Amino acid sequence: MTFLRRYGRFLLLAFVPIAVGLELTMPENHTAIFCASVVAILPLAAMIGRATDVLADRLGGGIGGLLNATFGNAAELIIGALALREGLFDLVKASLTGSIIGNVLLVFGAAAFVGGLKHPTQHFNRTAAGMGTTMLLLSTIGLVVPAVFHLLAHSGGSGVELKLDTEIAVVLFATYCASLIFTLRTHRSLFGPVSHGSAASDRAHNGSEVRRSVIMLFAATAGVAIVSELLVTSVVATARDLGMTNLFVGVVIVALVGNAAEHFSAVVLAAENKMDAAIAIAVGSSTQIALFVAPALVFLSYLIAPQPMDLLFTTYELVAIALSVLSIAFIAHDGETNWMEGVQLLAVYMILPLGFFFLPG
Amino acid sequence: MTFLRRYGRFLLLAFVPIAVGLELTMPENHTAIFCASVVAILPLAAMIGRATDVLADRLGGGIGGLLNATFGNAAELIIGALALREGLFDLVKASLTGSIIGNVLLVFGAAAFVGGLKHPTQHFNRTAAGMGTTMLLLSTIGLVVPAVFHLLAHSGGSGVELKLDTEIAVVLFATYCASLIFTLRTHRSLFGPVSHGSAASDRAHNGSEVRRSVIMLFAATAGVAIVSELLVTSVVATARDLGMTNLFVGVVIVALVGNAAEHFSAVVLAAENKMDAAIAIAVGSSTQIALFVAPALVFLSYLIAPQPMDLLFTTYELVAIALSVLSIAFIAHDGETNWMEGVQLLAVYMILPLGFFFLPG
Amino acid sequence: MTFLRRYGRFLLLAFVPIAVGLELTMPENHTAIFCASVVAILPLAAMIGRATDVLADRLGGGIGGLLNATFGNAAELIIGALALREGLFDLVKASLTGSIIGNVLLVFGAAAFVGGLKHPTQHFNRTAAGMGTTMLLLSTIGLVVPAVFHLLAHSGGSGVELKLDTEIAVVLFATYCASLIFTLRTHRSLFGPVSHGSAASDRAHNGSEVRRSVIMLFAATAGVAIVSELLVTSVVATARDLGMTNLFVGVVIVALVGNAAEHFSAVVLAAENKMDAAIAIAVGSSTQIALFVAPALVFLSYLIAPQPMDLLFTTYELVAIALSVLSIAFIAHDGETNWMEGVQLLAVYMILPLGFFFLPG
Repeated sequence: MTFLRRYGRFLLLAFVPIAVGLELTMPENHTAIFCASVVAILPLAAMIGRATDVLADRLGGGIGGLLNATFGNAAELIIGALALREGLFDLVKASLTGSIIGNVLLVFGAAAFVGGLKHPTQHFNRTAAGMGTTMLLLSTIGLVVPAVFHLLAHSGGSGVELKLDTEIAVVLFATYCASLIFTLRTHRSLFGPVSHGSAASDRAHNGSEVRRSVIMLFAATAGVAIVSELLVTSVVATARDLGMTNLFVGVVIVALVGNAAEHFSAVVLAAENKMDAAIAIAVGSSTQIALFVAPALVFLSYLIAPQPMDLLFTTYELVAIALSVLSIAFIAHDGETNWMEGVQLLAVYMILPLGFFFLPG
Repeated sequence: MTFLRRYGRFLLLAFVPIAVGLELTMPENHTAIFCASVVAILPLAAMIGRATDVLADRLGGGIGGLLNATFGNAAELIIGALALREGLFDLVKASLTGSIIGNVLLVFGAAAFVGGLKHPTQHFNRTAAGMGTTMLLLSTIGLVVPAVFHLLAHSGGSGVELKLDTEIAVVLFATYCASLIFTLRTHRSLFGPVSHGSAASDRAHNGSEVRRSVIMLFAATAGVAIVSELLVTSVVATARDLGMTNLFVGVVIVALVGNAAEHFSAVVLAAENKMDAAIAIAVGSSTQIALFVAPALVFLSYLIAPQPMDLLFTTYELVAIALSVLSIAFIAHDGETNWMEGVQLLAVYMILPLGFFFLPG
Repeated sequence: MTFLRRYGRFLLLAFVPIAVGLELTMPENHTAIFCASVVAILPLAAMIGRATDVLADRLGGGIGGLLNATFGNAAELIIGALALREGLFDLVKASLTGSIIGNVLLVFGAAAFVGGLKHPTQHFNRTAAGMGTTMLLLSTIGLVVPAVFHLLAHSGGSGVELKLDTEIAVVLFATYCASLIFTLRTHRSLFGPVSHGSAASDRAHNGSEVRRSVIMLFAATAGVAIVSELLVTSVVATARDLGMTNLFVGVVIVALVGNAAEHFSAVVLAAENKMDAAIAIAVGSSTQIALFVAPALVFLSYLIAPQPMDLLFTTYELVAIALSVLSIAFIAHDGETNWMEGVQLLAVYMILPLGFFFLPG
């Protein structure tokens, strides 16, 4: 186990050249390329996470937080941008949906379950958690309004809707910026221990480590960009070959890949009874997806996509997001968790993607 | 009053032979048979409840809890199974809906109101209550997903939907089993005083009482089976005669009958300021209906029904369940109640069945 | 600022004769009449509020509370009744919707934001706040049921629906009466400091002030009636001229006008860290709208409207109300607020009316 935790990353890194090699030698074998890319992204995302932690620690306060916010979801952003360029809007939205529900239900559910097996009741700061769940509710509202509007307006052309969606994206993004001021400046103490939760920050960082981190950050981001390209170009064919819909692949598989690093960290932290850090990762990551990545992709779509992307998620996606947010709110509002609450979140995660699996594309 | 509480049961028991007699002598008088059966089930359900309490107390821990879980909703299960055999799926689902909203709104509302008249503020354990409401949310999700899926998939045949519904039933049932481990084993102390809440457990139980309880349990269950048969065969004709829909009869009348014992216990306990026990009965009973009785009936339907039953509740039923769960969550999350909160729950109960009454069959 | 707070009211009062003058001299200039009426209502509503406070203080307890409940939303009631007489049901419902979401999101959001800028964390009584949000949930249920019923029943004629809606209005109204008993009698201490929150009540009131208040109350109410008449008759033409829908004008502009006094008071109280009073105004005012003004208008419609008004709000209105109630519940359940929570509520207020703006009439 210790060996795997130490060197597993390097073994997984081998999948980066494997994926590229497969693309060069047998470009028609989509499923193999897709699987290799999926595996290859895992260590790269972990490297980005680790390098960001070190730098955030060193730079401290505002800049560190900003760095974390931007690179923390680098994989999601890059995959999203590439899928956007291909006009795969359904896949982009499905992977945003999957990231939100996956972080809230699977990541936090697994963390509460594993942590709960060791500790009868685990406590965390209710104010910080409540803030996070309210942010998620806000995002849900931002996604529900376009859908309800679309149902009611029958506007034919999407001109009005696109305008509404873009304005909503601006409101969500501005709220996200305000929340950075809250988290990093005015109410820093509430969140203080959280950003130091990961194992990396327990050690002192010297100059050479910082330099190494900057290099690692750029190398890993470049790697993610390359591998994501392979992933996005092979995903549609793979889904067809495996008999799955784009929606299911986006919601479950792509989202799992983009958040694998968070999954691992949150569970480890919960097992160490650092529940504040675990919930900050799970809820914070969902919030970033909804309030930063989603609006950023809407803005980006004006530049790089064949046409601007709206915020019109499918009904089932909205129901899934809304139910996930309600679930985490019910569980987190009292500032404590136990293993059964983890089981409950995991059960919701079992039920929701089942529907995505069976739904026709 | 003391007299009635002591001997009322025996008076009501007379309705068992009355119901059977009516069926034998005037089988065409459906309404009379239905009414007699309704009254006859009340003392039988109370006897099952009392016998289960005594045995659970004696056997202790795991087995006692399992007994409680299985026999606690014996009446609902038997009525449901018989209606299933007749293919009356609408009635089955309506009575499940009615049991859930009735327990949450009517039972707990009446308990909070009556208790609140005597005690300005009543307190209970928030962790246990939060656990229960989250379980209810989970059940709601399990019921909402099939409905949304049905709306979106337009799958024509019900093959895919039935598969989805059966898998959801498995997830719900597995979560229920996990919750038994939580309640009876790992976090027993949280729920400890609850299972001892009823008046019966204040006395010591000797051997002869246990023997008597076993006999009572079997006799009462047999009685419920007989009377439920009469109830189910007369309900459709009665509803037609009284100008009510099957839906309304199932949601309001059958559900009230199946839960009468819980109603009475919860109100008495709340008046004695044992609010933990009262909420455990109300929320616990709803949870059992949603996570144990409903999946069990889905599984049973493969064996005894003309065709397997899906989990596709009507939109109005889902809205009613969801709003009930939200109501109890709003009221119970702070671990205290007062009479006004009881009035609020009762008001919601007044509003929701009104719709069922006016809805066309 | 002190000058404006002292004499601003008198300057604004000049708009009462201005509005009347415009109507007499250029009745075809709808937009000017509408704008003048909007401004003229502000000081009148403030006068009603102030006079009611003084009298409630003097009369004390039950009668004072009743006075507050009736006159606190006098402007809304009068505007609603006049619009009812014209058969402008859409406008009536839109202004009810706007009042509810405006109080919850804009008033309380602004209060929490402004208060939060001065005080890192502001606390308030959770029981009173929870009571208020549950009342709002109850109202939402009362408004959702007719809409769902309408969707499902396809009843053609509105006979059955009107009956359902009237009965729901009775239940809501009865619950409101019960809540007055709770607030003013049995649990007075919970709400005690709240009704004394306004600046007016810090002074002793002598006889002449009471007399002056009675006169002020009647004069201001008469003024509101006159100006509301102008407002209602000019609103449809104004909306058309400005290219807005009736819905948007009702939800945003009319609702803002009717609640301007509450807005100002709540923000001032929050800045003084009297958060209990601020939330009581915001949530209490929404509750009064939903449980007192709305049912009262339904009952009134039988007397003065061309035909009885139902409770059938548009889907978007219901979604907006439901999301607002969820937002306040997420934010208020822990009994504390900070500036970021104010921003979150304001962000929701930015998103929801955007949809009303773009929706076709």
